[in-house]
Amino acid sequence: MATEQLAEWIHNLNYSDLPDSVIEAATRSFHNSLGCIIGAAGHETVLKLNRMYRYEDRPAQCTIFGRSRFDGFHRETTISNAISINGVASHVNDYDDTHLQTIIHPAGAIVVALLAQTESSPDWACNGEEFITAVVVGIETSLRLGNAISPNHYSAGWHITGTVSPIGVAAAVSKLMHLTLEQIVYALGIASTQPVGLRVHFGTDTKALHVSRAAQSGLQAVELAQGGFTAAVDALEGRRGWVEVLGHGANNLNEQINQLMRLTEEARNGNRQSTEKWETEKNTFKPFPCGIVIHPIIDACIQLHNEQKLKEKLATISSIHLQVHPLVLDLTGKRTPQDDLEAKFSVYHGAAIGLLFGSATPAQYKTKVVQSLQVIQIRDRVTAEANEKIRSDEAFVTIRLTTGEEITKHVEHAVGSQDRPMTDEELRDKFRKQVEPVLEAEQAALLERLAWEVNKCGDMSLIIDAAQ
Amino acid sequence: MATEQLAEWIHNLNYSDLPDSVIEAATRSFHNSLGCIIGAAGHETVLKLNRMYRYEDRPAQCTIFGRSRFDGFHRETTISNAISINGVASHVNDYDDTHLQTIIHPAGAIVVALLAQTESSPDWACNGEEFITAVVVGIETSLRLGNAISPNHYSAGWHITGTVSPIGVAAAVSKLMHLTLEQIVYALGIASTQPVGLRVHFGTDTKALHVSRAAQSGLQAVELAQGGFTAAVDALEGRRGWVEVLGHGANNLNEQINQLMRLTEEARNGNRQSTEKWETEKNTFKPFPCGIVIHPIIDACIQLHNEQKLKEKLATISSIHLQVHPLVLDLTGKRTPQDDLEAKFSVYHGAAIGLLFGSATPAQYKTKVVQSLQVIQIRDRVTAEANEKIRSDEAFVTIRLTTGEEITKHVEHAVGSQDRPMTDEELRDKFRKQVEPVLEAEQAALLERLAWEVNKCGDMSLIIDAAQ
Repeated sequence: MATEQLAEWIHNLNYSDLPDSVIEAATRSFHNSLGCIIGAAGHETVLKLNRMYRYEDRPAQCTIFGRSRFDGFHRETTISNAISINGVASHVNDYDDTHLQTIIHPAGAIVVALLAQTESSPDWACNGEEFITAVVVGIETSLRLGNAISPNHYSAGWHITGTVSPIGVAAAVSKLMHLTLEQIVYALGIASTQPVGLRVHFGTDTKALHVSRAAQSGLQAVELAQGGFTAAVDALEGRRGWVEVLGHGANNLNEQINQLMRLTEEARNGNRQSTEKWETEKNTFKPFPCGIVIHPIIDACIQLHNEQKLKEKLATISSIHLQVHPLVLDLTGKRTPQDDLEAKFSVYHGAAIGLLFGSATPAQYKTKVVQSLQVIQIRDRVTAEANEKIRSDEAFVTIRLTTGEEITKHVEHAVGSQDRPMTDEELRDKFRKQVEPVLEAEQAALLERLAWEVNKCGDMSLIIDAAQ
Repeated sequence: MATEQLAEWIHNLNYSDLPDSVIEAATRSFHNSLGCIIGAAGHETVLKLNRMYRYEDRPAQCTIFGRSRFDGFHRETTISNAISINGVASHVNDYDDTHLQTIIHPAGAIVVALLAQTESSPDWACNGEEFITAVVVGIETSLRLGNAISPNHYSAGWHITGTVSPIGVAAAVSKLMHLTLEQIVYALGIASTQPVGLRVHFGTDTKALHVSRAAQSGLQAVELAQGGFTAAVDALEGRRGWVEVLGHGANNLNEQINQLMRLTEEARNGNRQSTEKWETEKNTFKPFPCGIVIHPIIDACIQLHNEQKLKEKLATISSIHLQVHPLVLDLTGKRTPQDDLEAKFSVYHGAAIGLLFGSATPAQYKTKVVQSLQVIQIRDRVTAEANEKIRSDEAFVTIRLTTGEEITKHVEHAVGSQDRPMTDEELRDKFRKQVEPVLEAEQAALLERLAWEVNKCGDMSLIIDAAQ
């Protein structure tokens, strides 16, 4: 029943059913994802793909986002290749969104597939309301399915973003393309049989590929279903189906689908009784391009940089001591990172760039920064200590100066956490800082405004045009 | 180490290293697979795909096999679409090959990917020796990996053909394209992160799609690795890698790789000491287009038809009693199948067509035959009884006539089983019966001869040309 119920929800959902808070959350998710895609347009992993594809292939119909400043690279390709390149860009900087309960990064795959599909033919042109409805359908599907099999699934070694996203993308694209109820059931089934992503690949190009491949599979599932291809009607809940095989014992599917139906019904009746939230509202955004466990330390160090005029005191720092949640050293205890990818797994690097630059963006994670003497000198003075009493969004930093002075900082809830989400202004600033090095200034400003009010956009091609 | 060892084996294997028995087994696998692909060219699931794709896409460079008799359908498409259509055709009739120990159908995905790749550009033109070396690389990789995670993996609900084949295909295509050792390691890794196939989809179009999608993923993995994309170098054996995540506790990887290296070393030195076989030699071929557990009954009934002139006695049959291995009724106990797909899960239908027609080919599984009065009348007289003392390749049939006469048949080892493999003549006959309704007679005969001596083929394009 769950697969059919979910398909019915997808089929029947209207923009007018969505609470304002959900529209706002989906807009923030879209805006953040688009900024990440464009911001990573020049990343080496993305450029590898751009060099790899055959550009004589036709039809070349979809935009590779954010190419204006990259002479000699291709700006348009087939729908499948566009999804590949844009999908990798959405995730490669570890700067995207995070649903904290499941560690899913839901928006990237959905956004790149929807943008490519709407651009691929005038048949699929859509306005912002239709687009954002499809985004909600996709994100809610991915996150509900993620909840249903967490935490066992991720613990077993799956990169959950790659395993839920084929289904989330199939849901979103089914909505955009107005599939029939029966076709949606099949699309979900065809997508569910193609989970992508083993965690062994973290730290390599293949990690970000999981997003692209999931998006391609989800889109293809919709095309197949539309062409009459059949799949199991109980693909998610059935014997030897998605939850049984991929859940490794966890199974919360019925409860997840029921809650989704209930919340939608309440919204439809203008009668929001429950205190429960749509999962889309729980999506958070990374203020810093690295694993989320390091964020409290970076937050503390940036605050210290700004408040203490540390630039003038750098030479007098004798030691920097961090107190952190135990997971921080488990996951990100790399003392002497050698390149950009390793630096993402070093709380020491995070502390150093926060103190030195008052900023942690992809620029401070470039290999040449990771290897610079200036950074290494500060990083080598950092020590860290795990403390089980410290929460995962909390941290303490103590700096001792050669003058004997001691400066401390306590971050209770790191920026970007559930209790201290990024403000609208912070998100818009993050977008601008990502996009400005890639697009012309005027175009960047226009795109930022359009993306921030995506639901009011009369035609999504305006945003696509501004993003290239 | 296992991933790197396997890559080294792939990189270093030469045609001259292959024992004659392995070349012969790989040739039989290729020949059988090509026959199945062409034989299913008119299957409804295949035609759905043929209707679905956009044929204005360029480059259109790869053959859709076996189209000569299907007017109005496309004969050439992009490499990705060709793999999709041919891959589904290879498996959709349940008539392909079976590695009994793992229930993998290894050849289909490998054959369609290699044929498409060699056809896609003059750069990848190859002769039969190169082609069959790549086939062995692919099949051996798929089956060794299958052994490593069996039986837990299939029992957990995975369609093992779809989960090993991306890696087998990546191995085969890496060999054909002469990748460097490092690129092969990455290709195996990229492929390993894309397992396809949940068993919940058995009985729908999606089951055969698993073969296509696996082949597409394996080929794409090779392209990405060649373009410089990186993956975990311990993708198969590493923590949170392929064996750990997909093995559900089973892990026989090191032993499998070691045996493969040892056998190759012995062959290279002309010193075949061990009694162990290459896995390629253990691949079997289906004499009948249905689940393998029904084969002993069909074999018995066809023998009865031929020996007893049953045609003349049909009206006098009062009952047909089957004694079978218990799994037969578990898996294929459907008493009143309604269409072609359901008939594949009915031992009653298998018995009826064997007795009536003395033949069980895709023609006897068509829906109109399944629903015909003639078949139903016989089928309704069949009863079946499970007996734990009967082996899985064994069966007893007892027919009672209204005259009081009783006719019995005992099949000790069904045709197609490990102890009674299909003979060369039976395989060649199976090929002809599949291909003759699709291609012109002369062309069918030419193709059969070429495929049967594939290793002597000077240029694989000769076979590809003959197959359209």
